[in-house]
Amino acid sequence: MAPYHLIYWPGLPGRGEHVRLVLEEAGAEYTDTAHTDDGIKEVLQHINAEVPDDGVNPPICAPPILRHGEVLINQTPNIILYLGTQLGLVPDPKDEPAGIYRVNELVLTALDGLSNEPHDCHHPIAIGEYYEDQKEESLRKSQDYVKNRLPKFLGYFERVLRSKSSGHGPWLYGGQLTVADLVLFQCLDGIKFMFRKAVKKLEKDGNYSKVFALHEAVKQRPNIKDYLESDRRQQYSNGIYRYYEELDIEG
Amino acid sequence: MAPYHLIYWPGLPGRGEHVRLVLEEAGAEYTDTAHTDDGIKEVLQHINAEVPDDGVNPPICAPPILRHGEVLINQTPNIILYLGTQLGLVPDPKDEPAGIYRVNELVLTALDGLSNEPHDCHHPIAIGEYYEDQKEESLRKSQDYVKNRLPKFLGYFERVLRSKSSGHGPWLYGGQLTVADLVLFQCLDGIKFMFRKAVKKLEKDGNYSKVFALHEAVKQRPNIKDYLESDRRQQYSNGIYRYYEELDIEG
Repeated sequence: MAPYHLIYWPGLPGRGEHVRLVLEEAGAEYTDTAHTDDGIKEVLQHINAEVPDDGVNPPICAPPILRHGEVLINQTPNIILYLGTQLGLVPDPKDEPAGIYRVNELVLTALDGLSNEPHDCHHPIAIGEYYEDQKEESLRKSQDYVKNRLPKFLGYFERVLRSKSSGHGPWLYGGQLTVADLVLFQCLDGIKFMFRKAVKKLEKDGNYSKVFALHEAVKQRPNIKDYLESDRRQQYSNGIYRYYEELDIEG
Repeated sequence: MAPYHLIYWPGLPGRGEHVRLVLEEAGAEYTDTAHTDDGIKEVLQHINAEVPDDGVNPPICAPPILRHGEVLINQTPNIILYLGTQLGLVPDPKDEPAGIYRVNELVLTALDGLSNEPHDCHHPIAIGEYYEDQKEESLRKSQDYVKNRLPKFLGYFERVLRSKSSGHGPWLYGGQLTVADLVLFQCLDGIKFMFRKAVKKLEKDGNYSKVFALHEAVKQRPNIKDYLESDRRQQYSNGIYRYYEELDIEG
């Protein structure tokens, strides 16, 4: 089978990082526009309305994009679902037909509450404008996020991890590592970078111990550990998870 | 097989409407908490951390929720994917293994740009606070949405409809009606209600003629037509798509 090719903005982890973590955990062969000379050109070509589409796949709205042979797909949770099925990181539909939907809902919830909402904390008014032009609103949004939304979502995932459906061990569903654990890891990792004071306080509270233990358990997976120490791992910069001192509030 | 049961806030279309449209188009047997006496109680019970989960399905974060026999799942695009597969409203994986991912990406993009972003237009700062406490920011967000984001997403779907991958006829993918068409219909319908002046102007521009033709084509499907005329269809109120005169700007 063809190797996987990730098409994403070079120079930041962003939404592409979820795709990388799945490929790395599975030890899959892949290439990444983060490491090619004209990576950015390749991204732009795929979202340019002037460039004709291939006639097989629908035109692409935004990266991350995955190419796999003839298949060209986008939307982070969609790529995660595709790769999870391909690489055995979701329950086998032959054993348990509903398993992929139970895992997919956890992926979608993590991305909603712990990736999209943090992004909006520095861009609450207009995605196309600078943070500097919406600083005051960003502070208000961050205050609400840290006080209400972040505890809500951490509490939800703690509840999932304490439920019988999570099985034994540190994982979210069925006692096995799935793509949902990898997605939640990256979300937590980004939030620890962005809202470091608030997370420190929430860690001390002790109400989310299983959530933070999952972050640690993913970090210790041999393939993930190697990856995080490699130069394939992108450093946080001006992506979803950003560090602004004035938004780093305790809540 | 067991009938489907939709668990969602009574009294508004909201995200539950996407689920209803798929069930209605397929002529599936279903029940809906919008029409039961203690519907709201049933919703609250499922998202209450104090109520023990069933041990088979992960706890639920938020409605809409679908019950189907032992399966209990949430997250709108996840329910849509499940129902699409069950009811034959996605390409058959036996004929075309990548088809469901091509359709799922269109569903996710429609919900991102034409449902979640419009919601944020009246709640840009805090989801848990009143619109009245974030009116000024809502106007700024709506101005950006109508000027930049709405044309971007309409343009994207027009591009999809003009691509070879959409096949012949009015549908988004493969010449067949799929769940993506139903989702896009509801998004357009809500936006026509919320931003009526802006949509009127964009319709006149003529740049999105295939998008607006899709809205009309879905409306004319016999099962959908019956449904829209029935009292099962929820009226717009204080949900995702709201009418505020001061936000009804031309752009």
